[in-house]
Amino acid sequence: MLLKAENFQRGGAFKFRGAYNKLASLGAAERERGIITASSGNHAAAVALAANLFEARCLILMPDDASAFKVEAVSALGAEISRFDRYSTDREALLADLAASSGRTVVHPFDDELVMAGQGTVALELLEDAGEVDLLLCPVGGGGLIAGCATAIGTSSPTRVVGVEPSAGDDTRRSLALGERVSIPVPRTIADGQQLPTPGRLPFEVIKSRVGEIFTVSDDEIVVAMRYLFEHLQIVAEPSGASALAALLAGRVSTGGGRVGVVISGGNVGAERFCELIGTSS
Amino acid sequence: MLLKAENFQRGGAFKFRGAYNKLASLGAAERERGIITASSGNHAAAVALAANLFEARCLILMPDDASAFKVEAVSALGAEISRFDRYSTDREALLADLAASSGRTVVHPFDDELVMAGQGTVALELLEDAGEVDLLLCPVGGGGLIAGCATAIGTSSPTRVVGVEPSAGDDTRRSLALGERVSIPVPRTIADGQQLPTPGRLPFEVIKSRVGEIFTVSDDEIVVAMRYLFEHLQIVAEPSGASALAALLAGRVSTGGGRVGVVISGGNVGAERFCELIGTSS
Repeated sequence: MLLKAENFQRGGAFKFRGAYNKLASLGAAERERGIITASSGNHAAAVALAANLFEARCLILMPDDASAFKVEAVSALGAEISRFDRYSTDREALLADLAASSGRTVVHPFDDELVMAGQGTVALELLEDAGEVDLLLCPVGGGGLIAGCATAIGTSSPTRVVGVEPSAGDDTRRSLALGERVSIPVPRTIADGQQLPTPGRLPFEVIKSRVGEIFTVSDDEIVVAMRYLFEHLQIVAEPSGASALAALLAGRVSTGGGRVGVVISGGNVGAERFCELIGTSS
Repeated sequence: MLLKAENFQRGGAFKFRGAYNKLASLGAAERERGIITASSGNHAAAVALAANLFEARCLILMPDDASAFKVEAVSALGAEISRFDRYSTDREALLADLAASSGRTVVHPFDDELVMAGQGTVALELLEDAGEVDLLLCPVGGGGLIAGCATAIGTSSPTRVVGVEPSAGDDTRRSLALGERVSIPVPRTIADGQQLPTPGRLPFEVIKSRVGEIFTVSDDEIVVAMRYLFEHLQIVAEPSGASALAALLAGRVSTGGGRVGVVISGGNVGAERFCELIGTSS
């Protein structure tokens, strides 16, 4: 089992890759007008960090129930923050409206080819460091990470790319089964990086053609994986970050004895929240 | 601040270095007769692992109150385990008696030059990876780690090596102040890797000549450092493993603006124990 530990990435999650790639593509005038995004946390921190490095003005829409730990991290990076209700607001519409009225460039968390390409460097690095794998397990939220990784790996490679979603939020699994994007109510799950009602439009096109299967894991199985990473590998993963490993530990995915790569997508979880999760499981 | 993350070492702590070095020095007949040691956990796991690799018979004396997590890890490596009461037993005497009667070679946790030399590779690697540092902070238990590191750095280097002990277990600080080894009652502290009543004989000779100073930290300050490592660096440190960083975060040590190396000596702590510590602090 080869883990790609994106909890050690700048900002504590893979999201910095996509945000940086997007910001790097903007001209001076666009950076001056500023950027805008909406995110529950990791993408927010990544955009704030990239904006800081590129000296771009930055406005971030964060849901009311985003973890205090993540809101604090974003604020510390100097971004302006505006809150919204995750369960009643159409975040895509809100984002589009605010972008149109302010002239800011949207740095979408996943529905953007430059962002997806950035996330794909996760797979490139894993293969560069570890050599070929037979199976690559990726957490799936909006789909940017898995779409980028599947594209980076390419169709000529024997590597099978599969995704993992929380059971309560299996919109991508359902969409893949149906062949078109379906929407579900915003899922209630501890995996806050995967609380999305529908896969992104651009990622879903890639997922349809390049991703074999989507597996699901329960919140309890995610906590088992977080504990495993803590006690056996001494690393901290947030719930979404541990979801792909959870599928493997729960025996959800058959590895066929081959080499398996697993993306640990992020590690931003406060100690109290981690302990709350550990305490309510088992 | 440059951290040497020995929580990622084999066995989850720096101890494997010394144990491996010692085992590598034994002949086939000695390995056949077997080895013996006494340890609260990390040295035990390291010796069990090294014995396993060298196919040596292995008996480990572990205190009754050693964490279940550590006892389990040692047992899983195939070592025989015998328990003793940390607060009423003279472990050095017990160890010597059992070694004499069984013909086993003692792999002492610190009072052995080959073990100390092994631990010293922590400093060698840190300097190799990071270049020179002005200050190196090491946790101090029996003194094997800091003595090995101070020796590896050498007296011609400008690096100042300082040690950190839990306030309740400041036997090395007191010994250094007095110029000779003093014994204290077995200290009660969360830093179970540093619960020793007196510095080792051989390490203390090195500490006297090569270590500038010993600082102390409270149990609460140690928990602050554990939380910092968890939330900001996404790594897991056990209490003793975080003690050197605790001294830095608590402002106990003046860095003089120079480059600082900090040894995170181990990461073996169960999730429940971590949460217990996080819950009772702050």
